[in-house]
Amino acid sequence: MLKSVELMLYKEMRRFVEADLQRVETTIAKHLDSDVPFISETAQYVLSSGGKRIRPALLILSARLCSYAGPRMYDLSTVIEFIHTATLLHDDVMDHAELRRGNPTVHSLWGNEISILIGDYLYAKAMSLALADKDHLVMETVSDVTVEMAKGQVIETLKQRDLGISEAEYYRIIALKTASLFAASCKIGAIIGGISPQRRAKVEAFGHHLGMAFQMADDTLDFVAPADKLGKPVHNDLKEGKITLPIISLLQQASPEESQFVTDYVNNGSDDDAVPRQVTTLLHKYDTLKSTLAKAQEHVDQAKQQIESFAPCTAMDTLYAIADYVTTRDV
Amino acid sequence: MLKSVELMLYKEMRRFVEADLQRVETTIAKHLDSDVPFISETAQYVLSSGGKRIRPALLILSARLCSYAGPRMYDLSTVIEFIHTATLLHDDVMDHAELRRGNPTVHSLWGNEISILIGDYLYAKAMSLALADKDHLVMETVSDVTVEMAKGQVIETLKQRDLGISEAEYYRIIALKTASLFAASCKIGAIIGGISPQRRAKVEAFGHHLGMAFQMADDTLDFVAPADKLGKPVHNDLKEGKITLPIISLLQQASPEESQFVTDYVNNGSDDDAVPRQVTTLLHKYDTLKSTLAKAQEHVDQAKQQIESFAPCTAMDTLYAIADYVTTRDV
Repeated sequence: MLKSVELMLYKEMRRFVEADLQRVETTIAKHLDSDVPFISETAQYVLSSGGKRIRPALLILSARLCSYAGPRMYDLSTVIEFIHTATLLHDDVMDHAELRRGNPTVHSLWGNEISILIGDYLYAKAMSLALADKDHLVMETVSDVTVEMAKGQVIETLKQRDLGISEAEYYRIIALKTASLFAASCKIGAIIGGISPQRRAKVEAFGHHLGMAFQMADDTLDFVAPADKLGKPVHNDLKEGKITLPIISLLQQASPEESQFVTDYVNNGSDDDAVPRQVTTLLHKYDTLKSTLAKAQEHVDQAKQQIESFAPCTAMDTLYAIADYVTTRDV
Repeated sequence: MLKSVELMLYKEMRRFVEADLQRVETTIAKHLDSDVPFISETAQYVLSSGGKRIRPALLILSARLCSYAGPRMYDLSTVIEFIHTATLLHDDVMDHAELRRGNPTVHSLWGNEISILIGDYLYAKAMSLALADKDHLVMETVSDVTVEMAKGQVIETLKQRDLGISEAEYYRIIALKTASLFAASCKIGAIIGGISPQRRAKVEAFGHHLGMAFQMADDTLDFVAPADKLGKPVHNDLKEGKITLPIISLLQQASPEESQFVTDYVNNGSDDDAVPRQVTTLLHKYDTLKSTLAKAQEHVDQAKQQIESFAPCTAMDTLYAIADYVTTRDV
């Protein structure tokens, strides 16, 4: 699935934001400094365990696309990454996850309590940092996105193991739980970039479509990525009852017997490794990983269209490279 | 322990804020209206299950003490109650609590996931509502208090089952996890009341001392209240490993054998009902419930002193009545 041209381009383009992302790391460390050393250490552990910092990169590149290059983007990237990390910590409790990006989760090391509380702490710190930026629109964006994400996660939980979930419901969930934070990252970049509301909406829409594509691609990876690369076992989402587009598309086309087979696996799991392999075989039979990626690619294309009217610059090239990378990455 | 004079006074005084608290209920319901009916219903369930609304009452009375009587106090009371409820939801997951105020917890009805997520949703909504008030100092107060509460809960969790916990550490924990929200409620009332920073600090300090007293009294109730009145089993905190002042004071005075007995109970629990009864007997032997309440009373006195320079009014009388009630309540 990996197209090496896009990966090379992505790696090259990423160099453009490397120095910025280094400053994000320093800023994250600075804001984690707490009078409770355990909090700093635990939060640092989870924040430094191999995240790709794609949301900070989007915020910074969106700001640079609007010719902004001041210090606000580092603090606000930290806000976004704290929120993202808080949701991961709460996710891990809910999914009983033992591994995240190949490392033991906070939940497995220190227990549910600490994972919930460090998540709460990071949420609270994010709000506090966003407030310190003293821009009402930024703060509103941060506040709105946390409401949306929580809403998306509730709906996703309610739809767990519901094989009757529609494609539209799936899109609503990923829009709220994932695309909203991508959109907010880009929007905040545009806000500090000081462009007009109309143009800001385009940058925000770029983030939304990219987030949709990112999550759809991610949902295919659950079925294909080797466990050591993804950092978590395959079929993890499915085992947790998350019914994603590849499965929804499969059920739209499968025979009654095939549907029953998938339903049984989702509802009861299986100790037999052959069963998940057969599910994967069905996904390939109906080409639903490919069709999911094709739909993700449509979002990538829509994302790119949103910002094509902006003046060409390295930030724009890099945003394009990230957009292309999203559907071709294998991790 | 119940002193009926104080209770009668409290009930009478509470009538003064009854109409205000009714408006808080309407405001809470209004802000819970979500396009995801499950969220509204679940949040409404937990928010309407018998909370005493002491924090909204404090916010409103503090505002009225400063001659404020506008609509901001209802929205901001909702902010405070959402934050309080969010922490209860996360607490219940951590404590594996089945009952809260005599009702089944969200966690026991809908599971951990929903309890965590509705908590996250209420946090996010609280921030969003606080932001809509458009007062930087209010927003800062709300944001700071959530950081403090999360910090307090982390420290409390780290100190679980640690019988070496000092009195000072106990005070630090309850200041962060409980008194901070009481203080913030009063401070917000004073902010919208538009008084000077010096006088505002007094109102805030009133809330802090009241919160300290409230938590200390609450920590004695774990050992005395009948299960049907408290809505949760007695010795619940102790079983969860929360070492509170009555136990700390007991261990300061107990014989080595008695200490060992308590230590064994805290570490290993007991299926034998006689064991918790013997722990209670020890608490009475060293009078540590009484000494804890005496220390709570000192905080009540300090609280009252803070606001004695304010012009006498019904709001002040009511704050005094609430202060007296805190150490005498039996629920």
